[in-house]
Amino acid sequence: MEIVEVGPRDGLQNEKTLLSTEVKVEYITRAIAAGVRRIEAVAFAHPARVPQMADAEAVLAAVPRLPDVSYIGLVLNRRGLDRALASAGVDEVNYVLVATDEFSQRNQGMSTAASLAQWDEVAAGARAAGLRATLTVAAAFGCPFTGEVTAQHVAGLVAAAQTRPDEICLADTIGVGVPRQVAELVTEVRAVAPGVALRAHFHNTRNTGYANALAALEYGVLALDASTGGIGGCPFAPAATGNIATEDLAHLLHRSGTDTGTRLAELAETGTWIADQLGITAPAMLGRAGAFPPPATA
Amino acid sequence: MEIVEVGPRDGLQNEKTLLSTEVKVEYITRAIAAGVRRIEAVAFAHPARVPQMADAEAVLAAVPRLPDVSYIGLVLNRRGLDRALASAGVDEVNYVLVATDEFSQRNQGMSTAASLAQWDEVAAGARAAGLRATLTVAAAFGCPFTGEVTAQHVAGLVAAAQTRPDEICLADTIGVGVPRQVAELVTEVRAVAPGVALRAHFHNTRNTGYANALAALEYGVLALDASTGGIGGCPFAPAATGNIATEDLAHLLHRSGTDTGTRLAELAETGTWIADQLGITAPAMLGRAGAFPPPATA
Repeated sequence: MEIVEVGPRDGLQNEKTLLSTEVKVEYITRAIAAGVRRIEAVAFAHPARVPQMADAEAVLAAVPRLPDVSYIGLVLNRRGLDRALASAGVDEVNYVLVATDEFSQRNQGMSTAASLAQWDEVAAGARAAGLRATLTVAAAFGCPFTGEVTAQHVAGLVAAAQTRPDEICLADTIGVGVPRQVAELVTEVRAVAPGVALRAHFHNTRNTGYANALAALEYGVLALDASTGGIGGCPFAPAATGNIATEDLAHLLHRSGTDTGTRLAELAETGTWIADQLGITAPAMLGRAGAFPPPATA
Repeated sequence: MEIVEVGPRDGLQNEKTLLSTEVKVEYITRAIAAGVRRIEAVAFAHPARVPQMADAEAVLAAVPRLPDVSYIGLVLNRRGLDRALASAGVDEVNYVLVATDEFSQRNQGMSTAASLAQWDEVAAGARAAGLRATLTVAAAFGCPFTGEVTAQHVAGLVAAAQTRPDEICLADTIGVGVPRQVAELVTEVRAVAPGVALRAHFHNTRNTGYANALAALEYGVLALDASTGGIGGCPFAPAATGNIATEDLAHLLHRSGTDTGTRLAELAETGTWIADQLGITAPAMLGRAGAFPPPATA
């Protein structure tokens, strides 16, 4: 399995404190030093709406370039794609399709159907530039405005996408999913997009995120989003809180016999460090509790 | 499945703030109003060592008496049993056996073998008084002082117990277990204690507690400990933090199609209320995030 570090994007975009470009680059650099190899580094969103991401181009210009590290730029529309294509070093364009109209309007100012139509344009543009084009279905487990979102509805959206994504990410944007729902959603989406790699994205808003992550892996999802420190949330969803934490996920997986290619001590240190930069306590637990077994007994 | 509310015991015993007897009784009364029917109400520990439990007798004398509500008193030794037997309204004596000598010495001043010998005496005394006698194996997933604890070691302790417990509770006192370990431990313990009801006890110290709870149910565990508010921890284990929260567990189970007999809104309110009494932020998430789907859309 593969951990996708989304702290620099989803982690930072809902925090009140605006960090300097240098601190963002250090966050990414530290994650790489801890072993992460795929990073959602920026969002190309309107700087007035998401000021935390206003320096996306500057961040990408300054991050380390390593042959085995790939950077994802999140885009919400054609304008975002243009910025991604004009930036140095975006390896992958990740387009967001929100599963419900109400949330889609608030998140990117258009209906789900209009957003789905733009996906084709974005994917075509990304591929013409030699980039991977992946599709995140946001609010795939529930909507903060309209309630339940069924697996059948999400599968219908995926089936309606004209352009086949390089990967589909199923996102529980507001942290309402449970493992049974993960199993159902993965099964339904796979049925309409056979052979497409699946990725999952969980928030721990109601303490179900880590159980969901394990369920996703059990059902064949290949990649999991997580943010070092467990920081984050969606600025356009009420009461949204952090992603599952990279260090806690890695600790859980390592103790379950699954290697993630990451080093716990460096991840935990980075989680504590980024929380200090933001002036918050990290939602991640590992930095406070310490890895087990403790070094003295290991 | 059955939720055992352990907030009044495990939840309060590691908090710095000492609550009045009245507040403890109100905590229990609120949990009952929210639908909980089995409650670990007190520990009969030495008041100088665990001052939070010093008024155990007074709490038990004041809690509501309802025909379908049962109260557990936790005991660590013969002296604790004597206090339990002298108290009004203990329905069940829960004896703690710590799986490692180092932690057992710190927790109750004797080796694991000596503690195992006392179990027979405590169980006999409880049963002679018409009470259930249950056995919690603490640190069953790992020890803060000596590291890994194997499923075989725990099963060996259970096999060595001369008196058959009415129930065995497998406790991850310091929150280091993962679902794979839950599966292995439950399987090993069941093999040496066939037919004995199993209960599990998880702390969310490293964000694995809720995944472990689901795994325990999947492997046939019938009861889960949880504390409303997610408060708690062990005073004799470094960096120990709260139990899984009753409200978050109930929300997860309800959304998974498993009824717990509890009402989420009342649990969440109680979690926020007890945290206010303690002057802390509740580790439980539901009180902050709200249940899903939100009432407006449900």
